[in-house]
Amino acid sequence: MIAADNLPETTRDGDFDLLVYLQARQKLCEAALSQSVPQQYPETIYESMRYSLLAGGKRLRPILCLASCEMMGGTMEMAMPTACALEMIHTMSLIHDDLPAMDNDDYRRGKLTNHKVYGEDIAILAGDGLLAYAFEYIAAQTENVPAPQVLQVIAQLGKAVGAAGLVGGQVVDLESEGKSDISLETLDFIHKHKTGALLEACVVCGGILAGATPENLQRLSAYAQNIGLAFQIIDDILDITATQEQLGKTVGKDQQAQKVTYPSLWGIEESQKQAQQLIETACAQLEPFGAKAQPLLALAHFIVNRDR
Amino acid sequence: MIAADNLPETTRDGDFDLLVYLQARQKLCEAALSQSVPQQYPETIYESMRYSLLAGGKRLRPILCLASCEMMGGTMEMAMPTACALEMIHTMSLIHDDLPAMDNDDYRRGKLTNHKVYGEDIAILAGDGLLAYAFEYIAAQTENVPAPQVLQVIAQLGKAVGAAGLVGGQVVDLESEGKSDISLETLDFIHKHKTGALLEACVVCGGILAGATPENLQRLSAYAQNIGLAFQIIDDILDITATQEQLGKTVGKDQQAQKVTYPSLWGIEESQKQAQQLIETACAQLEPFGAKAQPLLALAHFIVNRDR
Repeated sequence: MIAADNLPETTRDGDFDLLVYLQARQKLCEAALSQSVPQQYPETIYESMRYSLLAGGKRLRPILCLASCEMMGGTMEMAMPTACALEMIHTMSLIHDDLPAMDNDDYRRGKLTNHKVYGEDIAILAGDGLLAYAFEYIAAQTENVPAPQVLQVIAQLGKAVGAAGLVGGQVVDLESEGKSDISLETLDFIHKHKTGALLEACVVCGGILAGATPENLQRLSAYAQNIGLAFQIIDDILDITATQEQLGKTVGKDQQAQKVTYPSLWGIEESQKQAQQLIETACAQLEPFGAKAQPLLALAHFIVNRDR
Repeated sequence: MIAADNLPETTRDGDFDLLVYLQARQKLCEAALSQSVPQQYPETIYESMRYSLLAGGKRLRPILCLASCEMMGGTMEMAMPTACALEMIHTMSLIHDDLPAMDNDDYRRGKLTNHKVYGEDIAILAGDGLLAYAFEYIAAQTENVPAPQVLQVIAQLGKAVGAAGLVGGQVVDLESEGKSDISLETLDFIHKHKTGALLEACVVCGGILAGATPENLQRLSAYAQNIGLAFQIIDDILDITATQEQLGKTVGKDQQAQKVTYPSLWGIEESQKQAQQLIETACAQLEPFGAKAQPLLALAHFIVNRDR
């Protein structure tokens, strides 16, 4: 959840109030997500999918997608099915990531992880169900967008999740575990794929749905890549500095696992500086869009200043 | 693999030779599947995906999709990306189904299961990768089909795989384990969803790609539902009567797990009769399509007469 003390001063200045904006968008996304997955027979699987999908969280991915679509001249309605699908996919990746065969986590967002509640078998199937449903949902629910653009969104999203994206990043991450000589190149690969690819898809798909030109999609992509990496650096820092209560998940896991992270390579202060630099590079990409870029600019600053 | 002794006499009569047909289609599908998933960095995940995707099998699902598209006036080329995607999804379901948390199988198609070779973590991710790639592949690779029809295929397929289809069937199957009082209704639900939904999607998606009318899609759907159930009945019978060598997987598992199956409810002879009846009902649906229906008619008879 987003609280006022979680926001940098600057975002509450002027005529754009990020806190109000985020809270309103979050509410819209929660309602759309709750409506997206029904509660029906066989109850266990729908309950398990809903348990993780509706477990809170910042809803940063759907909000980025909606904001990008609006900035490029589209409406929120055009992007809402894709926004929901992005959160379904993100949730799927968390459920599978938490499994005993993977990160073996018991808590997520302050609640028991999916397999701790429903068992490993159902948790695997809930992830599969959410992933399949995400694509179905975009294809069946998107309105007022030409079909070729919807297909482009599906292709983009599939790539962002699969072996060329999130899944590929997780594999390299798993293979790097316990190794203390991971190069910066490998660390960048992991994060560009594990976190970055889906964040990029959020922003780019919003643009595609609005009919953005290839040149503007390029700008959106560069913006997203930079905030994606900054997001990961901050994640690594928070794993060291935040409390379990703040994050709602186990902290200090990276250090415990002797994982190579940005702070372990650069130190905390330099990591913070690098994240700040990435955010500035990201925001520079949005200059041509003027005042319309305000939400995405504020979101970029929010990412680097968040404390959870 | 399909061998001559695996075919009923009748399919080698007249001007249509199912053996020649199946072998030629199988070869085409193998080539298309091998081309569909590249071998690149990060090698482990692509290798693991290819290991299971290219592990042989009858390729019944892609062949059904191609045959249905052609019967309805489309070309093989229009349906090939969807045909490959169907096999990717089928493979994903087998990889996840074989996991220790699910059926815990060591062998599949005479080879070690994915997690026995690559580990559970990679096997989970390989399934996720194949599932995401299936949708990407249809969206990005389908040519000469109007975009709204491609979207309809994606929606249909997503539904067939998710909680309203395959995943839902697996959940009810898991929940029925160890119970000896499963009703015929529940058994039907399991198989209509666990096996039937994807087989139906194969045939219906072929029709959608070819631009079939709603009435004809209805016929395709009825044909597929009937062969789907017959397929499952034969599967249950083979689990009792076939050898491990024939099936390439552990046999007698149903009896060992005291699973309720069609033969356990009806006996083997009655089950065979029921399967034959379903196949006849299926074939009756294809009457309006005349000689063009020959491959799908022969495939229906092949399903009920197979010995592996």
